[in-house]
Amino acid sequence: MNKISVLLILISLFTIACKQTTSEIETKNNSVVIDPLPSWVEGDTKTAIIKFVNDITNDGGSKYIHPNERIATFDNDGTLWCEQPVAQLEFVSYQINKMANSNPGWKDQQPYKSILEGDKNYLINDYINNHGKELMKLISITHSGITLERFNSDVEEFINSSMHPKYNKKYTETVYQPMIELIQYLQNNDFKTYICSGGGNDFMRVFAEETYDIVPENVIGTFAMNSFEQIDGSWQIVKGNNIFFMNDGLTKPAAIEQRIGRVPIFVAGNVRSGGDIGQLTYSNTNKLPNFQLLVNHDDDIREFAYSEKDSASLKAAVIGKWQVVSMKDDWLTIFPFEK
Amino acid sequence: MNKISVLLILISLFTIACKQTTSEIETKNNSVVIDPLPSWVEGDTKTAIIKFVNDITNDGGSKYIHPNERIATFDNDGTLWCEQPVAQLEFVSYQINKMANSNPGWKDQQPYKSILEGDKNYLINDYINNHGKELMKLISITHSGITLERFNSDVEEFINSSMHPKYNKKYTETVYQPMIELIQYLQNNDFKTYICSGGGNDFMRVFAEETYDIVPENVIGTFAMNSFEQIDGSWQIVKGNNIFFMNDGLTKPAAIEQRIGRVPIFVAGNVRSGGDIGQLTYSNTNKLPNFQLLVNHDDDIREFAYSEKDSASLKAAVIGKWQVVSMKDDWLTIFPFEK
Repeated sequence: MNKISVLLILISLFTIACKQTTSEIETKNNSVVIDPLPSWVEGDTKTAIIKFVNDITNDGGSKYIHPNERIATFDNDGTLWCEQPVAQLEFVSYQINKMANSNPGWKDQQPYKSILEGDKNYLINDYINNHGKELMKLISITHSGITLERFNSDVEEFINSSMHPKYNKKYTETVYQPMIELIQYLQNNDFKTYICSGGGNDFMRVFAEETYDIVPENVIGTFAMNSFEQIDGSWQIVKGNNIFFMNDGLTKPAAIEQRIGRVPIFVAGNVRSGGDIGQLTYSNTNKLPNFQLLVNHDDDIREFAYSEKDSASLKAAVIGKWQVVSMKDDWLTIFPFEK
Repeated sequence: MNKISVLLILISLFTIACKQTTSEIETKNNSVVIDPLPSWVEGDTKTAIIKFVNDITNDGGSKYIHPNERIATFDNDGTLWCEQPVAQLEFVSYQINKMANSNPGWKDQQPYKSILEGDKNYLINDYINNHGKELMKLISITHSGITLERFNSDVEEFINSSMHPKYNKKYTETVYQPMIELIQYLQNNDFKTYICSGGGNDFMRVFAEETYDIVPENVIGTFAMNSFEQIDGSWQIVKGNNIFFMNDGLTKPAAIEQRIGRVPIFVAGNVRSGGDIGQLTYSNTNKLPNFQLLVNHDDDIREFAYSEKDSASLKAAVIGKWQVVSMKDDWLTIFPFEK
């Protein structure tokens, strides 16, 4: 990080400190009300979120929604935490490097060789020309054929020992503070908050409860059906790779239907690959009042700035009347460690 | 129903009325305590259930379990409602008969012919000799290729217009009153109550909330992944038959893992096919205190009496120390309509 970045961060931290003093507490009917979203800039996006929640929790009002129907789904990568790099792919690389010790042949054998040599082009070409079949091999070997207990401890080890290259913080620290507040705010208003992400069902569960206060049954991800087997006399869940379901794009509504059986009234996703257009659109089909949030990564100083090739998500946001979040303009704080 | 049956039912109703007067209210520390399980006979089973719930909710006690971990799963057919006949197979038959009007060729074509003629042997032979492939054809044609909205209204129509052959009541009325009380009792003690059954995910959701107070996201059943498609300009969930997963026997733990991601502390199943041995055994593997209930159908007067070919469930109950429920001896009331 250069000196100008440090200066800009310090200025923004100072601004936040000043703003928080005025925004944390406001009075309403002579009672003290704590601002539920202190890391959000006072503006259209924050106002729209709070108005929606007030409307649908106002018992007797025309927009009231029963708590049973208050389903909210959040994408994970790029919506709740950084997706540069994608942590689960870093986990694959971490595991392959570890497993290479007992597989000496891998140093001359693809796709392992590319990982061991840090050559990213091999998998990029595979993704473009071969539907990512080589990546699937790597995911399969690191995510199946072992007990769930063992897999969970592999993920824990990775999470506890790997650092984000830009921030030198654990991946579970590179989460977005405004979104943590939003999850809490919705939970306090009797929403059932879910993750619905391309990340692995079992992978995300290892940290979701501690990091986001999202319980395992509310984590919806890419999955393969596991099996229940007796190993050395004790019954175990064994990670499988059959009945594989990739949770991304237009398949997200199918996963939400399988897991929840109700259309969400609130969905948050982000701009990058169009991977959340499906669940955001699905929420639009709800006959009850509904709200969509699309996070735009436009802050190259505090986080990353990137866009989508065909701008499909931003175009869909106009049609669906989704609220677009500018990380630069709507968020006072991005990460908890900034505070 | 013959006169003796009617007499026996009247006697048992009288007995219940007398017992309820004494069992509904008891005093504890001078405060009035309502009996949470009035349709259960005072005895070992009821005592064991109440002791378990008291133990794990006793904050500070050695067996205390945090509410997040209080997961309970219930089989449906034969555990929460009658499985003689299996309602979902009656639904298949109901639909085939309806669809036959626009498929005149079916009257000469198997497997449709067997359904239209009420010939049960054809599907029994298919099940024994052909892995039930003909039945799967019938399930596929009645459960896929239509919108979820349409499927839900098909199921509603069936539920509202079909009667149980023995009781002349709707299938949703042939539910077990003691189990309804048990679900309520667990919910009141901050359990998250789930169905985990061989019935269809989408099929059971149509009636589970109203009938059992079990919300759609807590219904775990046999499933195929559906799809999200644009039909005549509007986005719809369409019932699929890909990525098919049969939720029965040893696959139930896998479904619980996919859906919940925690091992249940409480599981209830029933004797018939061994279909619940998997989830009951899975619960036994929990490191936290856990409880298993196995319903035995031994009441040929008030319900049905039937056993399992190899008694596998009852044998497993001895090994796993599961509490076996005798419908005859443990339940004062079987159906809500008896009250």
